[in-house]
Amino acid sequence: MLKTNSSNATLIIDALQYPLPGRRWFEEWRVGGVSCVHVTVAIWENASETLQRLALWRQAFADHGDLVAVALTGNDIEAIASSGRTAVVLGFQNTAPIEHDIELIGTFRDLGVRIMQLTYNLQNYIGAGYWEANDGGLSSRFGRQAVDEMNRVGVLVDLSHCGERTTLDAIEYSSRPVSITHSNAREHVLNPGFGPGRLKTTEALKALSARGGVLGVCPNRSLVANGTKATLEDFTELVARSVDLMGVDAIGLGTDYCAGHPAAVRTWWRYARWSREKAEIPSFAPHEGWQDWFRSPADFPNIVQGLRHRGFSEIETQKILGGNWLRLFNEAFEPAQRAKAVA
Amino acid sequence: MLKTNSSNATLIIDALQYPLPGRRWFEEWRVGGVSCVHVTVAIWENASETLQRLALWRQAFADHGDLVAVALTGNDIEAIASSGRTAVVLGFQNTAPIEHDIELIGTFRDLGVRIMQLTYNLQNYIGAGYWEANDGGLSSRFGRQAVDEMNRVGVLVDLSHCGERTTLDAIEYSSRPVSITHSNAREHVLNPGFGPGRLKTTEALKALSARGGVLGVCPNRSLVANGTKATLEDFTELVARSVDLMGVDAIGLGTDYCAGHPAAVRTWWRYARWSREKAEIPSFAPHEGWQDWFRSPADFPNIVQGLRHRGFSEIETQKILGGNWLRLFNEAFEPAQRAKAVA
Repeated sequence: MLKTNSSNATLIIDALQYPLPGRRWFEEWRVGGVSCVHVTVAIWENASETLQRLALWRQAFADHGDLVAVALTGNDIEAIASSGRTAVVLGFQNTAPIEHDIELIGTFRDLGVRIMQLTYNLQNYIGAGYWEANDGGLSSRFGRQAVDEMNRVGVLVDLSHCGERTTLDAIEYSSRPVSITHSNAREHVLNPGFGPGRLKTTEALKALSARGGVLGVCPNRSLVANGTKATLEDFTELVARSVDLMGVDAIGLGTDYCAGHPAAVRTWWRYARWSREKAEIPSFAPHEGWQDWFRSPADFPNIVQGLRHRGFSEIETQKILGGNWLRLFNEAFEPAQRAKAVA
Repeated sequence: MLKTNSSNATLIIDALQYPLPGRRWFEEWRVGGVSCVHVTVAIWENASETLQRLALWRQAFADHGDLVAVALTGNDIEAIASSGRTAVVLGFQNTAPIEHDIELIGTFRDLGVRIMQLTYNLQNYIGAGYWEANDGGLSSRFGRQAVDEMNRVGVLVDLSHCGERTTLDAIEYSSRPVSITHSNAREHVLNPGFGPGRLKTTEALKALSARGGVLGVCPNRSLVANGTKATLEDFTELVARSVDLMGVDAIGLGTDYCAGHPAAVRTWWRYARWSREKAEIPSFAPHEGWQDWFRSPADFPNIVQGLRHRGFSEIETQKILGGNWLRLFNEAFEPAQRAKAVA
């Protein structure tokens, strides 16, 4: 019998992980008492390839229903967590899966996808990623119509890897609150491994919270000062400063924990098939490359303890650990008409 | 026996048509004495769908080998024309077929594709089209690498539907001359049906010719003043002013003749699957919607006569009718290493 923290009433939501769908990772979630994980299903896969990735998750839910279940609504998250399992929210880290077909947004939502990041590092039909030298913003034709459609059918927009102008445009253009599931405030982090462009400006973060959005503060070595040497106190201090910047209702967690992938897959995330000039991507064995207080999601209790130790009240801690994401997911996953009817 | 002008020594190259692959159109080419046509194979089709479009052309070459043959080199064009048939150059009006896969540029070249327009009206992975409110230029990652790859394998870059900054960037970035197969000079055309954005600025056209590129001057009703009422003299005057602007070595013809498609297909070109807000696209029966001196490519002899009547010398006329395109195609369709070895 696995030792779990499922009896813990605190809802813990991790707004970004990219695991292979496998029992090993699901068991870590249970050990860590993780109520819900937003997992990445696809980054560069086209529509047809994405169907195959979704089918792998479908099979995982069938095989490991004692540990995990797919969540289609905020209520699902609470119900699955109450049953002592981890709720899985399916998402894309790019809009490559929808190619340039507005109908595929609703089609993939029908298949369970609830979060779509508009761009992954590069420019696409919808906007630009942070790796581009120039960011023309949310594209004026398909970009706007795609956000309208996500708003309409109930898909949460994610802007984590987008460029600055695309981020600002999408926050302003979207009629419903959006998310930055895994990033940090640029003003709080010196010399991040991914470079400052991957972090968010104060202007973008203030706009995000002003429109009801949520930021997933991220302990990933490449997004914090001091990398793997960052202490738990460094991380909870980063959370506290993010709360000061955006308000306690706009802050959640998004670990960007991506374990179990071979080096070739990590290279694929960066370079896919668009480049032959593939830089070597460092590979980590599971539980390597993370701070000693967060070797894996099984260590989530350390973060819970750290937040309490930092002086957050119980209600603040619960908002940061999962309450804010639950509120946003509850709202954003509903189709627009139903969301209006409920409000 | 079809009456043809194939004995005419003048090489006539039309740098853009989008016909359905069918005998009716091939017969018009022969009547008009057209030596070579660059045809559009795909606009919004993804890689898999484009394979199906190419297969239709493959079958057409098998079925109608008495009238047409595929041209893979400039020499092919001359040989096919000498045999009394029309040489067909295969091209894309968008980079949707290559998705975001740099290898697919060479793969589609292996299948006969020799010209790729970087964007069709909208933004994509590589750049922005003229319909976008913002054009961030040739994208700094995949955009540049895609142009490098087209340069390397021998695919001619086409910028006809691109936005201004993408057009300027690609002309400057490409190590080999590029093309604008079907557009006109913005300074020469008032109130074009497609709007001024679809026409090219003086800055872009001067940059194009300075780098050895060629413009296909276009009689399409939506790209000229007075639409279907434009006279042959209006058109030859437009050619003459284009020659004044860019030099006689930079001017060819690109009719944008797109016959035989039902209205639903014309709507698809504009809106594909990216939009549900589809404006009604006017549909034309074959030979409708064109000036009375160019009801179809069978009327190419009228343009030949018009150019001579306008006062172009024989050598100038031959350059404009096909010589300039032949020079550029000869150069651009060769892989970079072979092109260097020949030079």
